[in-house]
Amino acid sequence: MIIVMNPKSNQMQIDDVINVLKNSGLGVHVSQGTERTIIGIIGDKTVLRDIPLEIMPGVEKLVPIVESFKLAGKTFRPEPSVVDVNGVKIGGKELVIMAGPCAVESREQVIEAAQAVKRSGAQFLRGGAFKPRTSPYAFQGLEEEGLKLLKEAKDATGLQIITEVTSDKAVETSIPYVDMFQIGARNVQNFQLLKEVGKSMKPVLLKRGSATTIDEWLNAAEYIMSEGNYSVVLCERGIRTFETATRNTLDLSAVPVVKNMSHLPIIVDPSHAAGKSRYVIPLSRAAIAAGADGLIVEVHPNPMCALSDAAQQLKPSEFDSLCKDISKLAPILEREFNYGC
Amino acid sequence: MIIVMNPKSNQMQIDDVINVLKNSGLGVHVSQGTERTIIGIIGDKTVLRDIPLEIMPGVEKLVPIVESFKLAGKTFRPEPSVVDVNGVKIGGKELVIMAGPCAVESREQVIEAAQAVKRSGAQFLRGGAFKPRTSPYAFQGLEEEGLKLLKEAKDATGLQIITEVTSDKAVETSIPYVDMFQIGARNVQNFQLLKEVGKSMKPVLLKRGSATTIDEWLNAAEYIMSEGNYSVVLCERGIRTFETATRNTLDLSAVPVVKNMSHLPIIVDPSHAAGKSRYVIPLSRAAIAAGADGLIVEVHPNPMCALSDAAQQLKPSEFDSLCKDISKLAPILEREFNYGC
Amino acid sequence: MIIVMNPKSNQMQIDDVINVLKNSGLGVHVSQGTERTIIGIIGDKTVLRDIPLEIMPGVEKLVPIVESFKLAGKTFRPEPSVVDVNGVKIGGKELVIMAGPCAVESREQVIEAAQAVKRSGAQFLRGGAFKPRTSPYAFQGLEEEGLKLLKEAKDATGLQIITEVTSDKAVETSIPYVDMFQIGARNVQNFQLLKEVGKSMKPVLLKRGSATTIDEWLNAAEYIMSEGNYSVVLCERGIRTFETATRNTLDLSAVPVVKNMSHLPIIVDPSHAAGKSRYVIPLSRAAIAAGADGLIVEVHPNPMCALSDAAQQLKPSEFDSLCKDISKLAPILEREFNYGC
Amino acid sequence: MIIVMNPKSNQMQIDDVINVLKNSGLGVHVSQGTERTIIGIIGDKTVLRDIPLEIMPGVEKLVPIVESFKLAGKTFRPEPSVVDVNGVKIGGKELVIMAGPCAVESREQVIEAAQAVKRSGAQFLRGGAFKPRTSPYAFQGLEEEGLKLLKEAKDATGLQIITEVTSDKAVETSIPYVDMFQIGARNVQNFQLLKEVGKSMKPVLLKRGSATTIDEWLNAAEYIMSEGNYSVVLCERGIRTFETATRNTLDLSAVPVVKNMSHLPIIVDPSHAAGKSRYVIPLSRAAIAAGADGLIVEVHPNPMCALSDAAQQLKPSEFDSLCKDISKLAPILEREFNYGC
Repeated sequence: MIIVMNPKSNQMQIDDVINVLKNSGLGVHVSQGTERTIIGIIGDKTVLRDIPLEIMPGVEKLVPIVESFKLAGKTFRPEPSVVDVNGVKIGGKELVIMAGPCAVESREQVIEAAQAVKRSGAQFLRGGAFKPRTSPYAFQGLEEEGLKLLKEAKDATGLQIITEVTSDKAVETSIPYVDMFQIGARNVQNFQLLKEVGKSMKPVLLKRGSATTIDEWLNAAEYIMSEGNYSVVLCERGIRTFETATRNTLDLSAVPVVKNMSHLPIIVDPSHAAGKSRYVIPLSRAAIAAGADGLIVEVHPNPMCALSDAAQQLKPSEFDSLCKDISKLAPILEREFNYGC
Repeated sequence: MIIVMNPKSNQMQIDDVINVLKNSGLGVHVSQGTERTIIGIIGDKTVLRDIPLEIMPGVEKLVPIVESFKLAGKTFRPEPSVVDVNGVKIGGKELVIMAGPCAVESREQVIEAAQAVKRSGAQFLRGGAFKPRTSPYAFQGLEEEGLKLLKEAKDATGLQIITEVTSDKAVETSIPYVDMFQIGARNVQNFQLLKEVGKSMKPVLLKRGSATTIDEWLNAAEYIMSEGNYSVVLCERGIRTFETATRNTLDLSAVPVVKNMSHLPIIVDPSHAAGKSRYVIPLSRAAIAAGADGLIVEVHPNPMCALSDAAQQLKPSEFDSLCKDISKLAPILEREFNYGC
Repeated sequence: MIIVMNPKSNQMQIDDVINVLKNSGLGVHVSQGTERTIIGIIGDKTVLRDIPLEIMPGVEKLVPIVESFKLAGKTFRPEPSVVDVNGVKIGGKELVIMAGPCAVESREQVIEAAQAVKRSGAQFLRGGAFKPRTSPYAFQGLEEEGLKLLKEAKDATGLQIITEVTSDKAVETSIPYVDMFQIGARNVQNFQLLKEVGKSMKPVLLKRGSATTIDEWLNAAEYIMSEGNYSVVLCERGIRTFETATRNTLDLSAVPVVKNMSHLPIIVDPSHAAGKSRYVIPLSRAAIAAGADGLIVEVHPNPMCALSDAAQQLKPSEFDSLCKDISKLAPILEREFNYGC
Repeated sequence: MIIVMNPKSNQMQIDDVINVLKNSGLGVHVSQGTERTIIGIIGDKTVLRDIPLEIMPGVEKLVPIVESFKLAGKTFRPEPSVVDVNGVKIGGKELVIMAGPCAVESREQVIEAAQAVKRSGAQFLRGGAFKPRTSPYAFQGLEEEGLKLLKEAKDATGLQIITEVTSDKAVETSIPYVDMFQIGARNVQNFQLLKEVGKSMKPVLLKRGSATTIDEWLNAAEYIMSEGNYSVVLCERGIRTFETATRNTLDLSAVPVVKNMSHLPIIVDPSHAAGKSRYVIPLSRAAIAAGADGLIVEVHPNPMCALSDAAQQLKPSEFDSLCKDISKLAPILEREFNYGC
């Protein structure tokens, strides 16, 4: 961290800041510029958490030099992490596809979806049992009944199960049924929930919030990891911007940026970003070409009958065509993907 | 709701849509334009929740005409609501000021803050016992210990107590100690938590999320109100934009917009928006001039010693000067505010 | 266009609106809902430009149904347009790559860059002679001297030349030297300049502004096309959002969205979006995978010596590697690209 | 400026950077932290403009410490500037109101508007003769004919005249007719135009662009000032965000932020931000309460007949009521405003 003093600050104020730092056991490096004095801090800045340097007299601003997260950063682990979910490795050479309906609606729907996505090469079945909906009057999910159906689909197909959890209680209820938790965009800074999935020690897919910077997102991952659970996979799903032609603006730059800042794997959700199924295939291809480790895609055996987000769910035939594309793209990018089961 | 058909849609597709609507018991009004056919829907659209009209063949888009919230809207209640918290009325003629430290840190700090803000005319003491922080390594709040100190401060000063709750458990713990719950910006779409404070029947201050549209915010209020709890006060606290000179961009237009769309009272939090105490006073004045029903402002007896958000907390003397300003502005705006206790 | 009347509007107000429309020669379709009256307008809405319907008593809002642009839209031309620049076709099967330095700096630099990008397969040389810079003290370009150097490079390599024009005078000066004009992001709504390049009848690359919606961007294209110049190619280059890890947020969804709304070709500029050369290659691959018709990429023979935007310019060896990637991606996407000259 | 070296950088790379700086005649201050080496630069950084430090091997990032503008900044002039337009002082104790129709439409309209706004206390008449419109098919302004009508209105009322200029030619044409130029939001980075109004030496009102940071805006002011024209007044008029309830999000924090960073006066345009006349009065009051030096407001003698932006123009009676409010607010804020002529 660097402290930039105000051009009008006097020597006493500069000395006061230096003393505070030294008394906290930190090293100090003072640089007298033509207009301003700059004070560099050397040592473990965590001791500064409780000292409001920014309001000390004469201080103009603090400039952070190092990121605020640790376990999620490259300094902690320079090599890419691979998250292993019962043998399916996310972040390795193989591309991982999670697919399935927005919401679990019925046994028939979920089994049919599972078989279809398995057939095309998906390794995970996704399906919502707890649905966070903008309006309280919209369908809110089957809850535990839905989890049981997901478990049945797992038994029938061998797919790994991922589902969104929205509260401590949902975490507890889901544990026996699922292989991986998903934290949705709206809960990316629900710190209580992040700690809870951290404690569960199950792998977690952490979606980016629609107004979350990459730095804040990695801090959210840090909440999970600081509980000892390092099996975190990030998921870019679009940010909120002024453009309304798509539901959110898919930020594919986040893929190489995260790869540069963190060791955690990152996948992409093109369905929620686009909001329309016709954009899902080109954006899926783009995500993989940008270097994503996989995709999470909404697929419904019969989108016309879907109880939520119908417009963005692919038909099984469209999903199959997407998987074929991915299998052709993979070798060009030095990745692997087995189209078909 | 209006359904806009694609220019290339054929009569059969148009008939299909009409039949779906009629079979759901809705009235239909077809308008044949020069380029497109438009289908207006007459009747209670809630029956359409489970019908994915937007993906029926030939449909180009759906255009909502009426808002998706009800209880929070002017159609439900055309006159402004007044929320009564033990006799303090929010949304009436009197301006209401909630003030106090970002976080409860010690008995001395909270009592001193309470006495200071009371002295200048505040009707509420605010103070965080459960602190949602971006980094897991930052101070997280005193929890129940903090609530007890707030209660002591209430007993000493007669101020109403408002505190942020971040989980079901925090709601339960806080009930005996506080007069009003605050839902923070990060939890505005934590629907589980919204329902929980709804059930509590305590008054709720609902902050806008940093990426929440006004429409979504009113839908969040609807979650609370749909549990039977109509004592909801909205709080604008800045939205996330590209501008970095302030922490968030305070959207004061939201004040007249909310007054136009909803009957709920609205106050403004200039402290979190600005992020710097020097901007708090001008923005507070602006908020009141824009028509806000009150303010929630961070005040710390000694900001230099604050454990969180030191840079945005006012000193008691600055707060006093703000209250003086508000008392002068009030009559011009046909409001009232009693400076001094 | 649809007119939504206020729930409190009375019959006289509704009749007034209907009369205004009928007097303008338009057809009217009135739909009486349970809460509101909705008035659909049939016929050529251009006659409404001078009638402020939105402030007539009783009117709540106007809802546009059809886009405000025409020549740029699919209704005007349902099939994709191909823009021919001296035989190089943009928007056809072949992918088109424009490459070269941010700014023209010297004969040696521009010739060396031209030969390098030609060698890897680029069809266009880009290079700025008129540089719009945020600070008035930064390098502003060689102007006509730069244009002459671009022309020399064309003669030496056979590449087409594209350069940014920033004023009417720059248009006039550039005409003899260049094959295609570029309108930069900052000038996307400089309507005077749009008309000027429209009149020139030279092909135009129209960059999206950093805060321009896709609808506004297509209206900007309409300005050029309404002068009779239909040779317009769009270029996505990132929009301004809250995220600061990249200079702008590259909106690759714009590629399929534009393909859905317009017949105009669209290419992508990953250099200005990313701001850092390390992100250019993954984003270039992603752009092509999303369906873009080509790329415009900054390449400098020696980025260490660049006078502007050094951080985002590729070295010739990096550009060569990118072209190799594109040549492998092309067949998977049913496109063509000839790596090497 | 501070150079942050990569944790993996070696001593040779650090020495290379230091040598480049020293060879440019700059002082250097090296600080060896626990994780990174940081190099502070002492002296005139303008010599660094042509040296791409950010891509030197081992460099992680550059951190600017001082703003990139000079003449617009407080270091250049610590006291607030007052811009004098034929005796009307902007930035002094008196609040200045500019008012009039969006576009000049006819003699009757402009004279009537001028008399009305004069009557309520406005010091300036605004009116557009050159209209930048999103669609090429919308009304584009009366051009020189409009300027003549504005001049007539000035002669009739004594009001100062301000009008928007959109091209070099418009500047030239307008010079004999107007007292102050307005640069519109879309042209805030039309650097050619900024230089042209700079050379004219007439006072300039510089609107903020809808996606312009305050830093970029002050750099745009710098373009005008670097031509020797210091009579620049800034105007906040809303920025583009995700919220669609208003046309733009009025950023009133910009008022105290600009006052903190610059000596230039700042006024506010609530009409373009809100897009709806019903929000103009509360936002005008808020702007003044936030510390703005004045307002520019759209007023039309008969908004129902306006040829552009009808929805946001006040009626003369509404404007009169606004001026009355301002005259009451002024003394509380230690400002002056004479209601009535």
